[in-house]
Amino acid sequence: MWDRLWIDVHLSVAARGDGRPGGDDFGIIRDGALAVQDGRIAWVGAAADLPGPARDLAASVIRCGGRWMTPGLVDPHTHLVYAGDRSAEFAERLQGVSYQDIARRGGGIAATMRATRAASDDELLQATLRRARRLVANGVTTLEIKSGYGLTLHDEMRLLRVARRVGDALPLRIHATFLGAHALPPEHAGRRDDYVRLLCADMIPAVAEAGLADSVDAFCEGIAFTPGEVERVFAAASRHGLPVRLHADQLSDLSGSALAARWGALSADHLEYADEAGIAAMARAGTVAILLPGAFYFTRETRPPPVELLRRHGVRIGLATDCNPGTSPVLTPTGIMNMACTLFRLTPGEALAGHTHVAAAALGLGDRVGRLAVGFAADMALWDIDGPHELSYWIGGQRPAARIFAGVPDAPPTRSQADSV
Amino acid sequence: MWDRLWIDVHLSVAARGDGRPGGDDFGIIRDGALAVQDGRIAWVGAAADLPGPARDLAASVIRCGGRWMTPGLVDPHTHLVYAGDRSAEFAERLQGVSYQDIARRGGGIAATMRATRAASDDELLQATLRRARRLVANGVTTLEIKSGYGLTLHDEMRLLRVARRVGDALPLRIHATFLGAHALPPEHAGRRDDYVRLLCADMIPAVAEAGLADSVDAFCEGIAFTPGEVERVFAAASRHGLPVRLHADQLSDLSGSALAARWGALSADHLEYADEAGIAAMARAGTVAILLPGAFYFTRETRPPPVELLRRHGVRIGLATDCNPGTSPVLTPTGIMNMACTLFRLTPGEALAGHTHVAAAALGLGDRVGRLAVGFAADMALWDIDGPHELSYWIGGQRPAARIFAGVPDAPPTRSQADSV
Ligand SMILES: [Zn+2]
Ligand SMILES: [Zn+2]
Repeated sequence: MWDRLWIDVHLSVAARGDGRPGGDDFGIIRDGALAVQDGRIAWVGAAADLPGPARDLAASVIRCGGRWMTPGLVDPHTHLVYAGDRSAEFAERLQGVSYQDIARRGGGIAATMRATRAASDDELLQATLRRARRLVANGVTTLEIKSGYGLTLHDEMRLLRVARRVGDALPLRIHATFLGAHALPPEHAGRRDDYVRLLCADMIPAVAEAGLADSVDAFCEGIAFTPGEVERVFAAASRHGLPVRLHADQLSDLSGSALAARWGALSADHLEYADEAGIAAMARAGTVAILLPGAFYFTRETRPPPVELLRRHGVRIGLATDCNPGTSPVLTPTGIMNMACTLFRLTPGEALAGHTHVAAAALGLGDRVGRLAVGFAADMALWDIDGPHELSYWIGGQRPAARIFAGVPDAPPTRSQADSV
Repeated sequence: MWDRLWIDVHLSVAARGDGRPGGDDFGIIRDGALAVQDGRIAWVGAAADLPGPARDLAASVIRCGGRWMTPGLVDPHTHLVYAGDRSAEFAERLQGVSYQDIARRGGGIAATMRATRAASDDELLQATLRRARRLVANGVTTLEIKSGYGLTLHDEMRLLRVARRVGDALPLRIHATFLGAHALPPEHAGRRDDYVRLLCADMIPAVAEAGLADSVDAFCEGIAFTPGEVERVFAAASRHGLPVRLHADQLSDLSGSALAARWGALSADHLEYADEAGIAAMARAGTVAILLPGAFYFTRETRPPPVELLRRHGVRIGLATDCNPGTSPVLTPTGIMNMACTLFRLTPGEALAGHTHVAAAALGLGDRVGRLAVGFAADMALWDIDGPHELSYWIGGQRPAARIFAGVPDAPPTRSQADSV
């Protein structure tokens, strides 16, 4: 007997999203059914094919009133652990204060780094949980969280521990990523090489030893780290058995996509300036392209990533919120799907694939997460929509009517945020 | 003794938002208090100035845990009453099917009109309530709803009745607008003049007689109605004592803004192509400019409205979702505020003013709604934020922690959408 069985539901088991005209295939099963046993999907198909009356098959039968079920959403790129508030800086920039002026008086990423270092572990956890709860309410079941605002061994380890604790506090799968190579910390100004040596000789070994990271990321850009420095970081990660990913070709073409592919990266992210050679290399390496339309929109970038080239070479396209305080304050994956369609011309099928099984593949979970398939994690979202293309249709996105993690439906929403009101 | 008193709260009583650098003034009262009597605000100020201990002053004292309170949001331009689903058409357009092709085979606005005419009153009401509930959850307390997908006397009256019933079913102030001059209905193809005569001689008088509309709108554009036709509609509206508003200068400069001003319109909306003469005329007439960044974003318009000219001439700038199935599917006013800042370079103060008291002025409610001031409607929203600029900061927007309508807090969120799950 199964633990739970969902019926009276339409399923989108896996969006193919291969971009062919007319081929926006969501893997639809109308009048479907899905059963769960021990946190995994045990049966999925048309309700008419169930091997008996529903009530005899599962301890609990859940009628969904004709709603749509998709895999739970996967957000494969966030900078969720930080303290401080940069919305005032956003307001200043709108009033014409330049980013350089803000940086010169200690704003920007340095401001977030200072506030993050100054926050206690518990303050950091509470600030992060506040954001993570919004992602959960918006349908996320698997979440990548990067460090990168600590930039000392001590603080980066603190951030990664906070990332792990998010997974203890909330019904979420967490993939923690070490991003010590996010920015050169101010105390290393003029001593870049020392910091890279610190990353490779001390920080990556310590993080690996403590089991605090599932992958290692770097920011390859003129304002961050050079390709040569990134190679050293990736070599250290590989020595310690950690897969890599890369912030690549966001603001300029440094052949970051080719670099990522050379190291067999799980993903190369941003890619606005990626060239065809790099994309071909990504295809050969199986590296996933993660597009981040939130940052594109918020920074008013005008050059979209080369979606047609990615399609032509067969590179899988994933999506992420890139949630961070400076360039992408967003916690609504379905809003990201709308931006990916509107701004980058993805199809709604590609967008849903991008926030489900392709995103899972970018976290090394492609065989376990992101599809409604037998043996996969029973992470699902139920939506009050007319069809799965509608998930990409609403500007700003929408919330699911219900969310299921590891086979267990979330409790009805409490008035947690308004309890004391 | 007051009915209710909110304490332990920071207030943004009225954002000035005059666009001057450094002048992003939200009317902040830290550690404030606000009292309500008979649905109106009876006292507002610093808690330290309360005329006695809180518990002696009101029948109910509500502690807000240091959250921020703003006026409830006002959405002054929506096409909320329609049936049918155009998200599949959105998907087709992304795959390269042209709008013309879609229109030729009966898609676009004609598809919505057919589905709307075919829907029963109750189906229309349920579809509209589903959208209105999302606006309520996102902080809206006053809502404009236009007709315009019926385009017969019978159907336009049906739509306006549905709009009124939304106000009976939900805790919302409704302003209903007759938009018979939305598009030429297909049965009048080649007989434009007949339809305008029908609008003026039959429809406006009947709508006015039945008390179903609070204002009359028209769509002045090459693909809709000419300035001369709009003048006839406005003349009929004026004869029947109804104020007017206008969809003006969205796709081309037809001097719609000047036309609106000439008729003392409450608002002129869109305005991407408005010229300086029209804007000066709007300033003299007191006509509010309603900007609609959702439609700008969704249709990938590249020419932003002339925000600097509006500021220079002192035209008040309001914001709206423009929620409609074809060009602006959005139900999150704070997401609109973020788009207004990011895409149009409004300040966060202007954005908040635009969705509160300026929007109220565009509905003729500027003396009653949209400010935390004594005598104003006690419509408020409570937010879990660090300051009111944060309301414009999050891409896709956010939900308030609580909402108050006419002095009454909403019941805790129920699992209405997921009840049967
Ligand atoms: Zn990033
Ligand atoms: Zn409109």
